[in-house]
Amino acid sequence: MSSFKFIEAGGITSVPGFRAAGVTAGFKRSGAPDFALVVSDEAETEFAGVFTSCLFAAAPVRLDRERVRDSRRLRAVAINSGIANACTGEQGMRAARESCRIASELLGFSPEEIAVASTGRIGDQLDMDLIRKGLELAIPALSGEERAGADAARAIMTTDTVPKSIAATLEVGGGKVTIGAMSKGAGMINPTLKALHATMICVITTDAKIAKPLLMEMLAFDAENSFNRITVDGDMSTNDTVLVLANGRSGVEILPGTPEAEAFREALGDVMRNLARRMVGDGEGATKLVTVEVVNARDAADAKLAAEAVANSLLCKTAWFGNDPNWGRVVAALGYSGAQFDPDRTDVFFGALPVVKAGGPAGTPEAELVKAVSGPEFTIRCDLRAGDAEYWVWTSDVSYEYVKINADYHT
Amino acid sequence: MSSFKFIEAGGITSVPGFRAAGVTAGFKRSGAPDFALVVSDEAETEFAGVFTSCLFAAAPVRLDRERVRDSRRLRAVAINSGIANACTGEQGMRAARESCRIASELLGFSPEEIAVASTGRIGDQLDMDLIRKGLELAIPALSGEERAGADAARAIMTTDTVPKSIAATLEVGGGKVTIGAMSKGAGMINPTLKALHATMICVITTDAKIAKPLLMEMLAFDAENSFNRITVDGDMSTNDTVLVLANGRSGVEILPGTPEAEAFREALGDVMRNLARRMVGDGEGATKLVTVEVVNARDAADAKLAAEAVANSLLCKTAWFGNDPNWGRVVAALGYSGAQFDPDRTDVFFGALPVVKAGGPAGTPEAELVKAVSGPEFTIRCDLRAGDAEYWVWTSDVSYEYVKINADYHT
Repeated sequence: MSSFKFIEAGGITSVPGFRAAGVTAGFKRSGAPDFALVVSDEAETEFAGVFTSCLFAAAPVRLDRERVRDSRRLRAVAINSGIANACTGEQGMRAARESCRIASELLGFSPEEIAVASTGRIGDQLDMDLIRKGLELAIPALSGEERAGADAARAIMTTDTVPKSIAATLEVGGGKVTIGAMSKGAGMINPTLKALHATMICVITTDAKIAKPLLMEMLAFDAENSFNRITVDGDMSTNDTVLVLANGRSGVEILPGTPEAEAFREALGDVMRNLARRMVGDGEGATKLVTVEVVNARDAADAKLAAEAVANSLLCKTAWFGNDPNWGRVVAALGYSGAQFDPDRTDVFFGALPVVKAGGPAGTPEAELVKAVSGPEFTIRCDLRAGDAEYWVWTSDVSYEYVKINADYHT
Repeated sequence: MSSFKFIEAGGITSVPGFRAAGVTAGFKRSGAPDFALVVSDEAETEFAGVFTSCLFAAAPVRLDRERVRDSRRLRAVAINSGIANACTGEQGMRAARESCRIASELLGFSPEEIAVASTGRIGDQLDMDLIRKGLELAIPALSGEERAGADAARAIMTTDTVPKSIAATLEVGGGKVTIGAMSKGAGMINPTLKALHATMICVITTDAKIAKPLLMEMLAFDAENSFNRITVDGDMSTNDTVLVLANGRSGVEILPGTPEAEAFREALGDVMRNLARRMVGDGEGATKLVTVEVVNARDAADAKLAAEAVANSLLCKTAWFGNDPNWGRVVAALGYSGAQFDPDRTDVFFGALPVVKAGGPAGTPEAELVKAVSGPEFTIRCDLRAGDAEYWVWTSDVSYEYVKINADYHT
């Protein structure tokens, strides 16, 4: 019925009818690219967005929420890195609106068809001259080539060490649709949400023909099972933004309640999980990607509490950095998570190795456990034997480099 | 009516009728002292205890909970450091009981009059020969001199860099009572409690005459306002134990509902806060002690959520280590804490300096802000302007040394 395939070197411009650019406007002192623009060539481009649930939502987040609520179509997303435009009060909101107005003037779309995103230092005001400069440089550079998508992905980076793009094709409904995406985010990454939200900046493009309500529903579901499953430092950002634009160019219509919708939603989820995973792998100072799986919890809420407690435990994260199979820290985190279970029935596995059996040491030799946590990637599975609910989280370790990055980032 | 005075060099043996010792039994590979014994010379010694709320409560915690529930009197507390006797199953419980049995045999008290506490590595079984050795060395060394209390305080340390003891006198009810205390704890320190609990090991002695129910009530109240207000790493321990022993030797009787009870409770709280504060100051790798104060929150629960979010934020803690007044991380943490307030009315102060005014930058020059967070101690006050509830937490920064200690502790 459907066949899904990743395009490893792909990105947002792998999708017909989207162009992008990444340029240096001057927001970053380093001189690295810091302004990205994504444009859809189809007037009837549907869209959806999910955002941080932090009360101090940045000005661009507040503006984009208006777009999701009020705008019928979206034609462009302008993103700057280096300045978050968060905690900038009325002046910050005016700056976000003014960014759309300038983009509108230069691109010829209405301001309501333009979204913005920002990432970087909190508390500084956007320099509108730099926004204009970014747009004036980016617009002539707009291109549908893969290289242009890669430029955009590079321009939205902050503490990321590598840009993150992906694309995929899906044969569905007698046609082929393409999904492209780029994301940034290596710090202030945390899945402990109160309401549905995402945890970084991500722009997704597709040429499927999907109406906004269905796209919104799919994005929310897939965010919950991708970006909301990752944590680097347990700190939720003020600027988390995920936008998806669907320009309909493929002619493949995705209608609610159909097998095609299910296939598309899954493909969208696969694309988002691909990026989410790479964001954790590129987490600030991270040397390891750890999957924390909780199984047989009493209910879904308990499974999540338990998995997130282990995934965010500073003692666990520093132990992993030290190749230290200190499972006492894992069970302590399970025990204080708030999940209800019988500690004396709990089992824990590192990969396939039993570590804790019925709440006590499983007896696996220390040397084997050290090996299990010494690779760049491993899974910790916690069986609470209290029900049948499960949850998983991707997390990273905390290294000297993490402290270095975050003690020095500001200055 | 009452006059309270700290005895700075004092400790558990500053209190008449208590003796203590600290010896090397061999639990620590380093050869450092690792076994402490505290004994009351009065048969009618009342006691109370509060413990971790971690589900994986260690065997000694489970045993001490039985004592609090079932025993009328307590005469001795035996504490080993190096092995936590946590996640050790039935064998661990047998070991805790056997420790009391051996102590009973050697001290002549009934096993039900003896409590135990352990701290150190999780998952290893207690070596009963070392427990016996510890007791055999400690009993002849028991002394009421201050030096003996200091020895005990030293023997319960793990990653602590300094021992922590304090004593105080209180003139009350026409007499004088003394309160002495020692505590340990530099890591796995976290106040995010589900139920009343403490977050480390602490033994408090007093010669006041107080019945168990009142002592229990006072201890619970004071723990909430001292040890439950501190965090080092956000990880709650499996072994947290606070025990208070009241031997009545002073003849000063403290009865419920009297001004004397209020004065004693306050004195007990001051002693516990003195230790709590020093525990954070000696937090693993800590270079700074930060007081996070939230005022004018909607309600007590919100005030606590907001203060603890900032106090446990890894991004805030690394910024403080870097002398970085990155207030964006503070407001982000307030914003994701779950507390309800209007971000655009929020004020934040570093010491006396305004940092955030009505949700935006207050305009205080960066150099002044850097100075404010560069000292060994400062206060961050967050005014949510949503009500009149308040809460405070003592926290520390996260340094390279923190990562070093916790990546290497196990091996």
